[in-house]
Amino acid sequence: MSQKKRYFLEEDEIPRNWYNIQADMPVKPMPPLNPQTREPMKAEDLYPIFARECCDQELNMTDRWIPIPDEVREMYKYYRSTPLVRAYGLEKALGTSAHIYFKNESVSPMGSHKLNSAIPQAYYCKKEGVKNVTTETGAGQWGASLSYAASLFGLEAAVYQVKISYEQKPYRRSIMQTFGAQVTPSPSMSTRAGKNILTANPNSQGSLGTAISEAVELARTTPDCKYALGSVLSHVTLHQTVIGLEAEKQMEMAGEYPDIVIACFGGGSNFGGISFPFMRHKIAAENGKSHTRFVAAEPASCPKLTKGKFCYDFGDEAGYTPLLPMFSLGHKFQPANIHAGGLRYHGAGVIVSQLLKDGLMEAVDIDQIESFEAGCLFARAEGIIPAPESCHAIAATIREVRKLKEGEEKVILFNLSGHGLVDMASYDKYLSGDLINYTVTDEEIEANLAKQQ
Amino acid sequence: MSQKKRYFLEEDEIPRNWYNIQADMPVKPMPPLNPQTREPMKAEDLYPIFARECCDQELNMTDRWIPIPDEVREMYKYYRSTPLVRAYGLEKALGTSAHIYFKNESVSPMGSHKLNSAIPQAYYCKKEGVKNVTTETGAGQWGASLSYAASLFGLEAAVYQVKISYEQKPYRRSIMQTFGAQVTPSPSMSTRAGKNILTANPNSQGSLGTAISEAVELARTTPDCKYALGSVLSHVTLHQTVIGLEAEKQMEMAGEYPDIVIACFGGGSNFGGISFPFMRHKIAAENGKSHTRFVAAEPASCPKLTKGKFCYDFGDEAGYTPLLPMFSLGHKFQPANIHAGGLRYHGAGVIVSQLLKDGLMEAVDIDQIESFEAGCLFARAEGIIPAPESCHAIAATIREVRKLKEGEEKVILFNLSGHGLVDMASYDKYLSGDLINYTVTDEEIEANLAKQQ
Repeated sequence: MSQKKRYFLEEDEIPRNWYNIQADMPVKPMPPLNPQTREPMKAEDLYPIFARECCDQELNMTDRWIPIPDEVREMYKYYRSTPLVRAYGLEKALGTSAHIYFKNESVSPMGSHKLNSAIPQAYYCKKEGVKNVTTETGAGQWGASLSYAASLFGLEAAVYQVKISYEQKPYRRSIMQTFGAQVTPSPSMSTRAGKNILTANPNSQGSLGTAISEAVELARTTPDCKYALGSVLSHVTLHQTVIGLEAEKQMEMAGEYPDIVIACFGGGSNFGGISFPFMRHKIAAENGKSHTRFVAAEPASCPKLTKGKFCYDFGDEAGYTPLLPMFSLGHKFQPANIHAGGLRYHGAGVIVSQLLKDGLMEAVDIDQIESFEAGCLFARAEGIIPAPESCHAIAATIREVRKLKEGEEKVILFNLSGHGLVDMASYDKYLSGDLINYTVTDEEIEANLAKQQ
Repeated sequence: MSQKKRYFLEEDEIPRNWYNIQADMPVKPMPPLNPQTREPMKAEDLYPIFARECCDQELNMTDRWIPIPDEVREMYKYYRSTPLVRAYGLEKALGTSAHIYFKNESVSPMGSHKLNSAIPQAYYCKKEGVKNVTTETGAGQWGASLSYAASLFGLEAAVYQVKISYEQKPYRRSIMQTFGAQVTPSPSMSTRAGKNILTANPNSQGSLGTAISEAVELARTTPDCKYALGSVLSHVTLHQTVIGLEAEKQMEMAGEYPDIVIACFGGGSNFGGISFPFMRHKIAAENGKSHTRFVAAEPASCPKLTKGKFCYDFGDEAGYTPLLPMFSLGHKFQPANIHAGGLRYHGAGVIVSQLLKDGLMEAVDIDQIESFEAGCLFARAEGIIPAPESCHAIAATIREVRKLKEGEEKVILFNLSGHGLVDMASYDKYLSGDLINYTVTDEEIEANLAKQQ
């Protein structure tokens, strides 16, 4: 009955490069546009906002492998490799002959995959002499990770936390403060973007789009300050490919290759992180590994991939960012207050948007209640309480399992992007029957898209 | 600059036996006594309360190695081995030439070491046909672990959670409920023990001693129900030796042997768990490994090891348990409401009590504020927010480091028994300057000891 459950890599096998799928994409992403001139933007145009190295990575269409700096790799070693786990418990609970694996990013000290990009972003800022970093955070996972990474490299961090999350998740605020970060609920009166929102709607509960506007404004108006984003952008997804690159080696140790790769979807970084290293074989159609399906699981209340429109749109609510070619619900879209705060974002990253357009991946939308049902089933089967965001990946996995024929032995790999120990209030609501589903009509989406520009 | 940070064991190297120090102790622990007759009790006398296998382990003075059942070892593989970590960040923050290692039990899915004993206890109950388990929980770590272990083996779990913790830590309650456990704040009106306390003091905030009384009473009065304890008893400590046995192999991988082993101290199971496998070499004085010091770090507000008296005392408030030979503050002692809820217990396990008496180990007491100072320093240095209990071990480690001479290369190993992500309200209080220290006078201890029996 002894079966190997967890696969680890030796420290010297932790990847030395991130994988840049932009070098391999059959159709390259369209460039970001300057909103005033609608001219394509170059990396240099982004330097005032982001660390320079991140800007270069963002628009790098040629280098397949980007070296992970030694300083970053040394910090990765504190929690990487994360385990690849064969989910025997979940398989048994589902009565399936599928082989289900998950990459357990929840063992990161901050409880999620976000640290994978927080460390390099803070490092690059430090390297170019920046003293302050600022960002937004929804569920608080990204804010906590950047706060810790900033403290590691001696930077000051200022975080705008979406107000509903600031209030619902005080523990995340405390985590950020433990690492010395300054945390402000967004919208706030500290920025023009925040003031405008509060003037129009004094009871605004905030959104990621608004919090991004506030952080970008702070970065623009503060000397020695750069902005760092936790998802959506291509350089963030690049950093997250360490997940899939590890998983690829670990699946080899298990003697398997995934037929389906699944991750939850907010802006696309954890999805791209686990998917792209496998997708490169599909693009190259090499080694007979071209059959793998890639499934992004988004919330039904914020369905940009399944119901949004591919268009140029802003990344933030106030329209401070470049125009990005993305599947979007419109940058003025205010998502419902679902508990998966990390998935409450109106748009999808440019790489994922292009890949979806080109049929290299799929998307499904998951109702809030279905996501928590899946999360509780997983918790009881595997002993890990998943983050509300990760519950969407589990729900999508269960859907795939239920589609299989009796005895069919598909190999499914999903990303457990984080644990839910700091989100127990959400489970409380689910367990007491107080959760509801939110949906969005086509008319609402149309109306939001019409508002843009 | 590349330095190995984390050491893991292969799954087939996870220990196959627990280490029973009772077989090796120079002076064996005195037996538990029947409170009515004051006659020594045998394992069979404990069968009505605990799983039979646990009772046999409790009083086993002869077998050095107790086999870990295959079913338990398979479940251990879901999170074991836990990493042994070289704390380079902490060393740097302290500017020390000591080599500091910690065993990271916080990566267990329940966030602490408690699962190591919850799994075998639930397994043994299942094996003998028991349908229900009941227990107490202070901080909630043990209750969460037993709830999960019970669900793994298809048992119903009823948990009495100390009322102050039930109110201060709603997330832990939700975690238990997610695994299907029934959670009751203690003292409650559901037992005679609870009613008596509430009648005398309607505002009682509860204590571990009271919650134990309630759970024991439930086990005694419910068919097919056994009680499971999370610390103090010798069989619990036995199960926890998996920590030290792993650490011993991992220290070998690192090419080092600890000069000092440190753990926080509530009832003694995490302390014994990491210490005893190393202490066996000290007892045998073999391989030149007899110099190691073992330091238990208890809270200054509940100082049974440093200020208590060695005597026969009850393990619970109501006096339902056998009389145990222990360092105690008196079983009526009501500890102050420190945030390290898991350390709020009046007595020490019988093995540890005997070892302290015989000079094989030491104890220090740590003030609440010193513990959180140490916890924050560690968090910023290593990125892991430690449980308030574990902060005591870190504080004791820092004290040892500060005693070293310039350049002295001692090897220190401490147990990071759990993370504090569900205890952020406590960090909040510390960061906002609202925490206070609690101390206990000799007179208070005398008065409590006088109350007993």
